Amino acid sequence: MKKLLIKKVILNEKQVDILIEGNKFKTISELIEEEADEIINGEGKAILPAFYNCHTHMSMTLLKGLTDEKELEDWLKEDIWPREAKMQPNDIYVASKFAILEMIKGGTVFCNDMYQFPEETMKAIDEMGIRGVVSKPEIDDLLSTPEELEKRKKKVLDFIQYPNPNPNRIIKGISCHSVYTVSPEFLQFYSDLAKKHDMYIHIHACETKNEVNISLKTHGCSPVKHLEKFGLLTDKTILAHCVHLTDEDIDLILKYKTRIAHCPTSNFKLKSGMMAFQKLKEKDVTITLGTDGSASNNSLSMLEEMKVCALNAKTQAQDSKAGHVNDIFKAATINGAKAFGFDAGVIEEGKLADFILVDLNHYLLLPNYNLISNMVYSAQNDCITDVFCDGVQLMKDRKVKDEDKICEEFRIISEKFRKLDNNSNTIG
Amino acid sequence: MKKLLIKKVILNEKQVDILIEGNKFKTISELIEEEADEIINGEGKAILPAFYNCHTHMSMTLLKGLTDEKELEDWLKEDIWPREAKMQPNDIYVASKFAILEMIKGGTVFCNDMYQFPEETMKAIDEMGIRGVVSKPEIDDLLSTPEELEKRKKKVLDFIQYPNPNPNRIIKGISCHSVYTVSPEFLQFYSDLAKKHDMYIHIHACETKNEVNISLKTHGCSPVKHLEKFGLLTDKTILAHCVHLTDEDIDLILKYKTRIAHCPTSNFKLKSGMMAFQKLKEKDVTITLGTDGSASNNSLSMLEEMKVCALNAKTQAQDSKAGHVNDIFKAATINGAKAFGFDAGVIEEGKLADFILVDLNHYLLLPNYNLISNMVYSAQNDCITDVFCDGVQLMKDRKVKDEDKICEEFRIISEKFRKLDNNSNTIG
Repeated sequence: MKKLLIKKVILNEKQVDILIEGNKFKTISELIEEEADEIINGEGKAILPAFYNCHTHMSMTLLKGLTDEKELEDWLKEDIWPREAKMQPNDIYVASKFAILEMIKGGTVFCNDMYQFPEETMKAIDEMGIRGVVSKPEIDDLLSTPEELEKRKKKVLDFIQYPNPNPNRIIKGISCHSVYTVSPEFLQFYSDLAKKHDMYIHIHACETKNEVNISLKTHGCSPVKHLEKFGLLTDKTILAHCVHLTDEDIDLILKYKTRIAHCPTSNFKLKSGMMAFQKLKEKDVTITLGTDGSASNNSLSMLEEMKVCALNAKTQAQDSKAGHVNDIFKAATINGAKAFGFDAGVIEEGKLADFILVDLNHYLLLPNYNLISNMVYSAQNDCITDVFCDGVQLMKDRKVKDEDKICEEFRIISEKFRKLDNNSNTIG
Repeated sequence: MKKLLIKKVILNEKQVDILIEGNKFKTISELIEEEADEIINGEGKAILPAFYNCHTHMSMTLLKGLTDEKELEDWLKEDIWPREAKMQPNDIYVASKFAILEMIKGGTVFCNDMYQFPEETMKAIDEMGIRGVVSKPEIDDLLSTPEELEKRKKKVLDFIQYPNPNPNRIIKGISCHSVYTVSPEFLQFYSDLAKKHDMYIHIHACETKNEVNISLKTHGCSPVKHLEKFGLLTDKTILAHCVHLTDEDIDLILKYKTRIAHCPTSNFKLKSGMMAFQKLKEKDVTITLGTDGSASNNSLSMLEEMKVCALNAKTQAQDSKAGHVNDIFKAATINGAKAFGFDAGVIEEGKLADFILVDLNHYLLLPNYNLISNMVYSAQNDCITDVFCDGVQLMKDRKVKDEDKICEEFRIISEKFRKLDNNSNTIG
């Protein structure tokens, strides 16, 4: 196994040496004099766990900035859906690689991704070296014919059979888009499938008041309660958004040890509301953090997400003590890792070596009174110098392998989606 | 006059050459073949106006991250005031230079600053090459003795006599801290002074509900109405925060052409509330943008401030059309320039050459469907490659002159403020 030795790096305000063997932290000690395949000088740098982005649609980076001022429905109908309908598998591959590049540049090494052509997303994740849970969000507008529904089910089954290029870092999951886009029959299908294959389940839940109202009207209960009926609340379920939860919903989430992916920037931008971070935290709900897709953020930076998380927490709770930087940093790291069964998110012997190095002399990290506060409130991507996932270095001195090529390929693809040409079958 | 020629730069989606003569844009044209003292290759870059930070306390960067989870009053009493009491003039000079470095790295070339020892702040602004309005915020706790009040007035008068090291870029203003910290007598003194010397007036107004309630109780009217009584609402007045305005307040602000400095991050972090950006915009109030001091943000990045401004605007108004990226970009640039009488904030012939160049191939600026959207929502400081103020280059390829030295001097000073030692007269 490859041995990597980091010398003189700051961990929790103390200088240490860290030996990584294979994909794990082997030894953390004041002085390590062992031989290693590679030695990294950590002087002037701190080591921190890398970020886990627990709710995103990476390829929506292709749709970033098309318009930021439309009502959700108009935006989806006029700008988003027509373009999504024309996306080809290679577009998803190229866009995913680019989105992962953006995430690595911001210290993120994991995505819980939900989008079309997840086979391509898996390929991109494998090649870029991060971890990810990917799933195929076949939806069902409740008006589908039985034939259409069978066709969609088959697509999901096909994806489950599709070879996983790297089971060590990639997990195939189930996407139930939401209770308003997936029929009861389809929910049951997903639930049976998740149970049979012991899979993670990724669901948008209680994102908007409207969604809750539709559920109350259609199903006679909240979205969370509706999911429970089908056995879709599990300790492998992650509910994205959770802005509008009742106390009963929270009790159900606790009962089933279901996790939440909090997406504060998206919630502000789409005026969905402000999630009760502090209340959920105090009730011991496991909160992870996600950027959502780039089209509704418009960034994949977990640093920015942590800051907006703090701003949301304090204003929502009307409490200065809400949104403690340590709780937010955990939401962005260890809570995400744990939610998906990766023994990472903290720098300790025996844990997976998913980590970043940050430049303690960076102007944005001065004064250095509290590094975690600086990471949550002050840091930007370029404070991070190096990124490692599974013991492998993905960014070195801010450079990611092939980054110019990845950007250029994405730039070319993106030009196709700039303008919609409705008179032809093409985009451009 | 020095001639600077920028070749092949993107302005409003078109490639142009731009000739700067002295401190102004002289010619903007498809092709300029004139001789110049310096030629800059603008290929792959866009030119945009630089940012104007219209409400800040720069030296509070010395207090960044001390704690982010205390109630305002405890935080001020336990962490902030004891340290501020021990700040020496040189601390302010060093901290201001460092804060300006941070601002330049984020494309900001102007500060409307309110803090102690503004003489030192002026020196720092002069040396760093940006523009600024500085003022001496002598307050009066309404319990001061007449002697104390006279002493404070004298300090303000002394500052007005203090030599301005660079009247071209620096303006001395008046700080009325707020209606709850400055007595009626002192307000009148400030008003008379501002009128006599035709000065800008910088006031915190309607930041919190508590402030409004105190004003109603003590003065029988809102803070804005109270300021009007003393002639402190003028077209050279800038009111910071304005979270809690009545319709009558808005009418007064419009009547006197008073400007607002919106500080959304600080308002979220201190749970002060959400300013009605869209309503004020639609009523034609001039909204500028400010970061507030770094201790309540914790950043001086106008890029971050624009994003939080957008998030605040949409959620506050519950309207997706609120907070248009173009309006927000204007608030961060031309509105601020105009508010302080600088003929800048837009790239046009004859205007002051305060501008930035951004790297259009930067991963955060792809896809490039809408550059202004990307600047508001997606950009981070390192998208900005070059910064100019008054025709002078302050940052070149992301390097600011003496930046390592400025950081190191700040780092040394900041160590003195890390811990409070209440048993001695020193900090450290």
